Amino acid sequence: MTDQLSIEAINEMVTEQFPGTGNRCVELGDGYAVAAYEVTPADIRPGGFVSGPCQFALADCALWFLAFVALERIEPMALTSELSIRYLRPAVGDRVLCRADLEAVSRRSVVGTAHVWIDGKPDKITAAAQGTYAIPLTH
Amino acid sequence: MTDQLSIEAINEMVTEQFPGTGNRCVELGDGYAVAAYEVTPADIRPGGFVSGPCQFALADCALWFLAFVALERIEPMALTSELSIRYLRPAVGDRVLCRADLEAVSRRSVVGTAHVWIDGKPDKITAAAQGTYAIPLTH
Amino acid sequence: MTDQLSIEAINEMVTEQFPGTGNRCVELGDGYAVAAYEVTPADIRPGGFVSGPCQFALADCALWFLAFVALERIEPMALTSELSIRYLRPAVGDRVLCRADLEAVSRRSVVGTAHVWIDGKPDKITAAAQGTYAIPLTH
Amino acid sequence: MTDQLSIEAINEMVTEQFPGTGNRCVELGDGYAVAAYEVTPADIRPGGFVSGPCQFALADCALWFLAFVALERIEPMALTSELSIRYLRPAVGDRVLCRADLEAVSRRSVVGTAHVWIDGKPDKITAAAQGTYAIPLTH
Repeated sequence: MTDQLSIEAINEMVTEQFPGTGNRCVELGDGYAVAAYEVTPADIRPGGFVSGPCQFALADCALWFLAFVALERIEPMALTSELSIRYLRPAVGDRVLCRADLEAVSRRSVVGTAHVWIDGKPDKITAAAQGTYAIPLTH
Repeated sequence: MTDQLSIEAINEMVTEQFPGTGNRCVELGDGYAVAAYEVTPADIRPGGFVSGPCQFALADCALWFLAFVALERIEPMALTSELSIRYLRPAVGDRVLCRADLEAVSRRSVVGTAHVWIDGKPDKITAAAQGTYAIPLTH
Repeated sequence: MTDQLSIEAINEMVTEQFPGTGNRCVELGDGYAVAAYEVTPADIRPGGFVSGPCQFALADCALWFLAFVALERIEPMALTSELSIRYLRPAVGDRVLCRADLEAVSRRSVVGTAHVWIDGKPDKITAAAQGTYAIPLTH
Repeated sequence: MTDQLSIEAINEMVTEQFPGTGNRCVELGDGYAVAAYEVTPADIRPGGFVSGPCQFALADCALWFLAFVALERIEPMALTSELSIRYLRPAVGDRVLCRADLEAVSRRSVVGTAHVWIDGKPDKITAAAQGTYAIPLTH
């Protein structure tokens, strides 16, 4: 990690530029990033489960942080071009985590795989996702 | 549409059982459903765009309503098993719409394709999605 | 369609540059392309069904032709960046068709939705797909 | 692995029931399976690359073998319900490998993540995929 690319710097950017999201960076490493989210009552779906879109949003955010890792800089304008998600089991709990692992980075895009789980139950993956972030083209 | 399966009945169920979502049903037809969402400041991403997860949540909801159409009943426990989304262009506006069209329904699942756009700009699709809803197995 | 972009010109290119594929262009129109494939015994899976990868290959090819339509030129180096497919019902028959419809084209990519069916049964879609073709970047 | 579920038993079933495929099982383990494919001239796309559908077919097959691992039996009628793939870099070589790892197994389905690479270059993943196999419902 460079000085510029720290958990604190990422969360400062997120808080300033995208205050509406509750997703935060909690870990960065070589080829991966972890994001966390505190579940609110608004995220609960019929049956008492953490909603699918809430898990999707967290996976999307973890992949955004992963793009910063791959690019070795905070690049807010890296944008999701596509993302697919599979829900594996009911998610019940107060805090959700997601780890995104780097598959590849090119001049155009960053591809990663993400796994979502309820805090304390890392062996019970609730969703698996894979997606692509587009890197802004330079001129 | 059966009496039981009306826009009003769906929105009543959504309001009661999933009060956290702002997505509402606005149209139902043979093999399709349309959902709408009023954008809030919390949904705005860096650059001023309606966030990807916000569009995903709307597509997910439109496909849920589509599952009701396919099953000819309101079935809150129909659950997304997988969903993939592609973002096509920046989404800027106050109200987002999504139409989900039925691809197939079987004993196990409902598959549909969804298109998202900003209200008033139906020719500028901002996201295209495709996904599967699992139907609860009866015994 | 321009003079350069005809069914015949596409199939000539395919035959020359990619002789291994049995997929051929059979129709081109404003925002869409149709590809066809004659099933061989090698494509039959346990149960007597046309294999999933065979349908995937046809969808991939139809989207390639769609990229030519979107770019208004034959561009063999347009490459699939991602593709997702859902299988809807068993496919049994001798000839498979796939229509790809344009969702969006940008400087970087072409996105389309594709539907596969057995010749003569256009109302029984056997697979639905959605994917992205990367356009070679010019300098 | 049970006695019944061996590399040899799988490849015998594949050879008998699906002779058209060149994909073979080369490794089985706790929660994973590896498949291999010898590239033929018919698989080469413009530019000299192993075609996308060829890599997709291998990933699909590795996930099929993974379903056998998850079910602890050879179940030829386990069928792909959906699969998404991302191509990460050009694939050039004579033999392609794919490892599929188990994400989850339920009564209805098996979900896995797959990575494709050219033999000898395991650090250069050429494609990443994720998908779902439907388990035949018992009565």
